[in-house]
Amino acid sequence: MAISKKTIERLSLYRRLIHDLHYSNRSTIFSHELAAMAHCTPAQVRRDLMTADIKGSSSTGYDVATLTTGINAILLHGHIQKAALAGIGNLGRAILSYFPQRSPTVEITAAFDSDPSKIGRIIHGCRTYPIDDLASVVKDHAITIGIITTPREAAQAIADKMIAAGIRGILNFAPIPIRVSTGVETEHLDLTMSLEKLAYFSRRNS
Amino acid sequence: MAISKKTIERLSLYRRLIHDLHYSNRSTIFSHELAAMAHCTPAQVRRDLMTADIKGSSSTGYDVATLTTGINAILLHGHIQKAALAGIGNLGRAILSYFPQRSPTVEITAAFDSDPSKIGRIIHGCRTYPIDDLASVVKDHAITIGIITTPREAAQAIADKMIAAGIRGILNFAPIPIRVSTGVETEHLDLTMSLEKLAYFSRRNS
Repeated sequence: MAISKKTIERLSLYRRLIHDLHYSNRSTIFSHELAAMAHCTPAQVRRDLMTADIKGSSSTGYDVATLTTGINAILLHGHIQKAALAGIGNLGRAILSYFPQRSPTVEITAAFDSDPSKIGRIIHGCRTYPIDDLASVVKDHAITIGIITTPREAAQAIADKMIAAGIRGILNFAPIPIRVSTGVETEHLDLTMSLEKLAYFSRRNS
Repeated sequence: MAISKKTIERLSLYRRLIHDLHYSNRSTIFSHELAAMAHCTPAQVRRDLMTADIKGSSSTGYDVATLTTGINAILLHGHIQKAALAGIGNLGRAILSYFPQRSPTVEITAAFDSDPSKIGRIIHGCRTYPIDDLASVVKDHAITIGIITTPREAAQAIADKMIAAGIRGILNFAPIPIRVSTGVETEHLDLTMSLEKLAYFSRRNS
């Protein structure tokens, strides 16, 4: 089953919206309600959930527990994936504090830096290591995902090290694109680009 | 002149790549060199720069100073835009420390929080205010951009306050989409969604 990137994005969002429902004691939800929260159409919600093999009823909607189980079967696939973060600056620390509470499918297991004063510590529950240990730590912990929060100059060398160590997906926060080999997935979160684009288009609206 | 979002994104990237060239004492650059750094085609670079009304020579390439001036004319448009950040947690602090060094076109002028212990301070050079002062501070400082780093529950109410105060562009880091009125530009940087999408597709590659 090939699922598109857009569908995976929305399943990730639905999971979080549904998670909130547990606290409000809702046991079922209609596609139009989920669509209103996710800012898409009810038809889109139904298509996405059909892709994920989750069935609802036209009279009672979707069962909330079934939705959670079904989406987790896709996103989690039976086990939590482990991630390594490189670059323990302000952004790196914020990421270490951010994700543990928010994604049940990925766990940041190790953080790396070249600065000796930042290594051999526990930061927001994550152990820190010297960058030279990256290959061995990635192998020992079966880490499959890399998160780059280094300055621009270091980003490509870190990406190369991560890929050589066997990492197959990189979330890149450095303000420069990285080159990766075929079969490695990357996602570039270029904060400066997002802000400058927003500034340009918001100016045109005012 | 209507410029596409993708072109604005690449102009923002070119500007940063060119900025680095200043330090390496390069005075000209060819489209194929810029394309290699930006991971796109030379034809794409030439089209983008033509859109930005920047001319090069086939024998010597583009003049680096002219490139900088030309791109800044588009992105900066003669003045720095001011931004307000709401939500001074770990991510908010990281954003306050991150942008001042990286975008010459946007300046974060004020930060807001509902926690009294976080207000009336200077964090990474930015003054902090109570959330109730948002409307007046936005008006006094002619702030046009909002950055939301609050928890999910607070995001929509903050977005509504920002829009009511006259803000026309919102960069949303909260893990939930926000509703905005027509004429307001938004960019949603959903870190959890990016990580979960990456985890899903990198698993399929391994």
